[in-house]
Amino acid sequence: MRWIRYNDDAQSRYGILGDDDRITAVNGNPFEGYEKTSTILRLDDVQLEVPVIPPTFYAVGLNYVKHISTEGKAIPTKPDVGYRANNALIAHDRDVIMPADATRVHYEGELVVVIGKKARNLRLDDVDACILGYTIGNDVSERNWQATDRTFWRAKNTDTFKPMGPWISTQVDVANMETVVTVNGRETTRFGTSDMLFGIKEFIVDMSRYLTLYPGDMIWMGTDGESPNLQHGDTVEVTLTGLGTLTNRFVKTGEL
Amino acid sequence: MRWIRYNDDAQSRYGILGDDDRITAVNGNPFEGYEKTSTILRLDDVQLEVPVIPPTFYAVGLNYVKHISTEGKAIPTKPDVGYRANNALIAHDRDVIMPADATRVHYEGELVVVIGKKARNLRLDDVDACILGYTIGNDVSERNWQATDRTFWRAKNTDTFKPMGPWISTQVDVANMETVVTVNGRETTRFGTSDMLFGIKEFIVDMSRYLTLYPGDMIWMGTDGESPNLQHGDTVEVTLTGLGTLTNRFVKTGEL
Repeated sequence: MRWIRYNDDAQSRYGILGDDDRITAVNGNPFEGYEKTSTILRLDDVQLEVPVIPPTFYAVGLNYVKHISTEGKAIPTKPDVGYRANNALIAHDRDVIMPADATRVHYEGELVVVIGKKARNLRLDDVDACILGYTIGNDVSERNWQATDRTFWRAKNTDTFKPMGPWISTQVDVANMETVVTVNGRETTRFGTSDMLFGIKEFIVDMSRYLTLYPGDMIWMGTDGESPNLQHGDTVEVTLTGLGTLTNRFVKTGEL
Repeated sequence: MRWIRYNDDAQSRYGILGDDDRITAVNGNPFEGYEKTSTILRLDDVQLEVPVIPPTFYAVGLNYVKHISTEGKAIPTKPDVGYRANNALIAHDRDVIMPADATRVHYEGELVVVIGKKARNLRLDDVDACILGYTIGNDVSERNWQATDRTFWRAKNTDTFKPMGPWISTQVDVANMETVVTVNGRETTRFGTSDMLFGIKEFIVDMSRYLTLYPGDMIWMGTDGESPNLQHGDTVEVTLTGLGTLTNRFVKTGEL
């Protein structure tokens, strides 16, 4: 099943996307319950929104060995999760706005886990039941700010720096997915989820020993490889097996 | 004006707290608009909730010189804001649960700024108009985890580690407030907001150059001084001039 969230007369609504790219509008949402309506829409006719606004936005910083080496960091010895900020989220097909003083902007294509049920103190075998599904994130980063600021506030959380979507897929084979990133149609990065240092279940089990996960929380699972410095007008597409393609144009603003 | 949020028949509601400690229930909320109802409640009769669940939870890590020295950190040269997580929020009078493996738990009494209006690219003179009011936060921290984990996820964001309240006050003299912290009635920390390294307006102006602030976002402004290691059964009270007192008992759980 594929869940999409779209704008309907200035309201955010959920719908179920069929194989024919028709959307069945629902009342309610995938977290608290829903019922299908008789309204059918075409995917091309709706304006997509990010598939969920999380209560807490978790992100794994360093989880693929090649990327860790390009960042010049030590290999983590345990799964310490980090955070990102909701202000930065934008949907599929929306522009990433690079401020005038952002000179080293990189993409990071990532698998995103969306939590479906409230959970605490999970065992490995219980994790799947608390996951609603998966989507795609682009953890856009300004590397100069990442090196010089004391936190990731600007480097990772400037408005529009967190594209996510296009939708949430509930049935995918997460152990065997490939992430492919292209810039203006040319492939620049390719890696497999099988190369993660710590898996999704390990992260969730460890997190849930100390914190409650809530419906709609999401965990971005980290990236591999390296990005070129993105330029005004570049289009970045992140494709994950079974999840579709997240497309965003990068635009330089004249304003500081 | 004092805004409180309380539990009414399993629903969260806002009310206005008068000088006589009577609450006037409202329909709506202080961010999107409200109207008073004829329902009057006594403060002692309601169960308080945290006064707001923020879209994004900002926190200033190092903003008072004495505290920075106890943390062994360099003095920041610019206002880089950080993040905390909503799962950890608890209300006034609720217990902070210290996990069995948390052995060095400290309080951090803090002034909390609550954003009232959507804002971007603010000038210093515009900041006050985007602030709804102020409340009190206790940025509870486990110092061993803070030293050894790669991020603050457990150290700062374990469930119940972010007490906040008791309410939001809209008129206070933020430039001349004193923070007093007591443990079991004995004063252990006292400092003034005038000792902040970077002020509220500086933080908000700088943040708003890169990100949009939304109604309900909040910024915890950092702490000064040092806390003793808190023990099972300790009661911590954080009092800020004009904002009241945030009280929480600390309880050690047997579970790991």
